[in-house]
Amino acid sequence: MAGNSILLAAVSVLSACQQSYFALHVGRARLKYKVMPPAVAGSPEFERIFRAQQNCVEFYPVFMITLWMAGWYFNQVLAACLGLVYIYARHKYFWGYSEAAKKRTTGFQLSLGMLVLLTILGALGIANSFLDEYLDLDIAKKLRHF
Amino acid sequence: MAGNSILLAAVSVLSACQQSYFALHVGRARLKYKVMPPAVAGSPEFERIFRAQQNCVEFYPVFMITLWMAGWYFNQVLAACLGLVYIYARHKYFWGYSEAAKKRTTGFQLSLGMLVLLTILGALGIANSFLDEYLDLDIAKKLRHF
Amino acid sequence: MAGNSILLAAVSVLSACQQSYFALHVGRARLKYKVMPPAVAGSPEFERIFRAQQNCVEFYPVFMITLWMAGWYFNQVLAACLGLVYIYARHKYFWGYSEAAKKRTTGFQLSLGMLVLLTILGALGIANSFLDEYLDLDIAKKLRHF
Repeated sequence: MAGNSILLAAVSVLSACQQSYFALHVGRARLKYKVMPPAVAGSPEFERIFRAQQNCVEFYPVFMITLWMAGWYFNQVLAACLGLVYIYARHKYFWGYSEAAKKRTTGFQLSLGMLVLLTILGALGIANSFLDEYLDLDIAKKLRHF
Repeated sequence: MAGNSILLAAVSVLSACQQSYFALHVGRARLKYKVMPPAVAGSPEFERIFRAQQNCVEFYPVFMITLWMAGWYFNQVLAACLGLVYIYARHKYFWGYSEAAKKRTTGFQLSLGMLVLLTILGALGIANSFLDEYLDLDIAKKLRHF
Repeated sequence: MAGNSILLAAVSVLSACQQSYFALHVGRARLKYKVMPPAVAGSPEFERIFRAQQNCVEFYPVFMITLWMAGWYFNQVLAACLGLVYIYARHKYFWGYSEAAKKRTTGFQLSLGMLVLLTILGALGIANSFLDEYLDLDIAKKLRHF
């Protein structure tokens, strides 16, 4: 268990650090733009940073689930690489959105692409394990055989 | 590991797709009701769709944790079935809420019921494994014995 | 798998119950302060309770990831204890914030401290497993040797 998830674990801890960093940056932006809790509106700059972080929060559990499923059921190294690209895409998205609402698109689309890939890999891996376990049919092995 | 979690994995990937779908629907609603980012208010229709998605986001990690704990420590097939009902309940909730705030109740209560069941199953399974490991007392086995 | 994660599983289910409890408390606060869905503003008391819950939601997946990584790759008992302190810190934070925005600080700082510790333990454990697996260098074993 511990051995064959090590890269997924490393990517997960890295992305957890990124999430915390975004959250703390929102806290700093509160002070800078004088938006006192519990308010979340009042300054367009703060609102952009806040929405950027909220969007990352929304997609974080989806990212974690698809990363681990793709890593466990398809291929760990590939999943971890896609995970690193996702983290980079979120970095681009967050800082782009902080500057201007228009600059959020590139990072967002890249992050979405990584999620789609991870989901497809996870679904393929799960389908293969499912056929293997319940119908005794290992497609991956047969494909490798050709 | 991979073998005895396959149904949980399938339900997880399915629910991750649902979450992404809800998030993308919010994006489409932004365009339709002309609510430009970073704003999240201004149109009651958009606000309902946005709140529906936010509520799904809030409960998603709780769902994932209780699903996997119930599946690992109690019974995988039962947990996966409850998980499927939860996904259906969230579907009902999201589209109900999109139409009118009153129509959100049925789906929400069903989803809450599933979470309560998954939590109880998870807690029972964990308690049994705990007694088994630390006090060498396997209640589940004894019950099966009667 | 099931055996050596039992304490992590117990802490996870407990924290899932706490998250649901916070969410339901926001629902009750809606009725009490007459903030009808989908609105999330209008009463400062409700807004504080709502923001407190939202902040717990934001950090919940980060907590789960760091808890499990620290437990799997460093030490389960230590990670579970830090997890319990985190749950207590979130309890203090939520009820403090519900009363006054100023009273949220102590609980928040304690919860952040726990997250930092869990992240460090997880990173150390992962680094050690990584060196062990890919470079055949087990530092933890060597340290124990001295």
